[in-house]
Amino acid sequence: MAHAGSVSARLLPLLWCCLVPGFCIPRPTLQPKPCQAPEQWEGRAVVYDHNTGRNSRVLISYDGQNQRVRVLEERKGHIPCKKFYEYIYLFKNPVVFKIEQVTKQCSKLPLIQPWDPYDIPNNSTYEDQYNIGGPGDQIEVQEWSDRKPARKFETWVGVYTVKDCYPVQETYTKSYNVTTSTRFFDLQLGISDPSVFTPPSTCQAASPKEMSDDC
Amino acid sequence: MAHAGSVSARLLPLLWCCLVPGFCIPRPTLQPKPCQAPEQWEGRAVVYDHNTGRNSRVLISYDGQNQRVRVLEERKGHIPCKKFYEYIYLFKNPVVFKIEQVTKQCSKLPLIQPWDPYDIPNNSTYEDQYNIGGPGDQIEVQEWSDRKPARKFETWVGVYTVKDCYPVQETYTKSYNVTTSTRFFDLQLGISDPSVFTPPSTCQAASPKEMSDDC
Repeated sequence: MAHAGSVSARLLPLLWCCLVPGFCIPRPTLQPKPCQAPEQWEGRAVVYDHNTGRNSRVLISYDGQNQRVRVLEERKGHIPCKKFYEYIYLFKNPVVFKIEQVTKQCSKLPLIQPWDPYDIPNNSTYEDQYNIGGPGDQIEVQEWSDRKPARKFETWVGVYTVKDCYPVQETYTKSYNVTTSTRFFDLQLGISDPSVFTPPSTCQAASPKEMSDDC
Repeated sequence: MAHAGSVSARLLPLLWCCLVPGFCIPRPTLQPKPCQAPEQWEGRAVVYDHNTGRNSRVLISYDGQNQRVRVLEERKGHIPCKKFYEYIYLFKNPVVFKIEQVTKQCSKLPLIQPWDPYDIPNNSTYEDQYNIGGPGDQIEVQEWSDRKPARKFETWVGVYTVKDCYPVQETYTKSYNVTTSTRFFDLQLGISDPSVFTPPSTCQAASPKEMSDDC
């Protein structure tokens, strides 16, 4: 099928439009600029892991200013032996606390991946703009990626609202077989309770080992 | 991570609420019913193939009444040797015409997969309801799947708008490694030009063989 290409506007250099001889005005290119995503918000998400074919539902508190994210798995469904976790990512330390929701058993693990905010990097490639929803019930979004025309396929695609630049969807392809899609919703500006980023007392003597998922 | 579970409301049987002795009124369950998706629409879509990690952008004309779909690959990007196709799926025949957009070379191929409309089947499992977008700029959607609680993981997830029941996203998992996600947008009710379902004249003597994608 067709590869996601750039809009032809992207190929235009900065044009100079001479309307009247001797009176040149600069004309901007049609390439849009990435919007500035909000730095602190709370909401929900579904994370789709293409490896397992599973959807995970989570609550997210996102604090881009302080580079920390709290993820609480939603306890839906009744699966024998299934454990639900809370994750507190502190990228400045860098450490992640993994807390089992019932027992509060806590692991303190090194955070290997670098800080990657939910935003559109300045050097991103504009892919598309469109309306999601039906007639009279729509939101306008832009799609951006890290694709480099004629050089590199995209490994990240981000969909953000045009109004206020909230995330709608992010897709990462680490290799052909390791991909995740995250869809965001029920987003609210700000952090209503900053204490969610403070690990519980069980984390003071936390094990630096990963917990077992066994029963 | 947490498996996508059903809302607990799903577990409720039809309850009878006796407010006044001798005066019983039936109280409906909280399990929502699938909405009725529009039967004819036009719009655009991005099809994400998790196998290849590629996004394809297409124009879609969807005629559920007559079980036919026309898909036109958008000619974006400049990829050497890349061919772009038009597909006309006629599920009642059942046959698909595959037409190369430049030469109009046409293949007439048997359509093996059964008709599967863009809608929410009546026996679907309600998963969630939420707002996509930022505060003051949202659409309300419902998520449905073919999951059977405690029996079967989902292989289809559909996200549809609450107002008017337009498709927003469909994800199919045929096996762990064969998955596609389709995101829909710029949707309009009805078919503006029904002639798009009529194959071009080059299809009258169409080859029953698949075309080569070679240069």
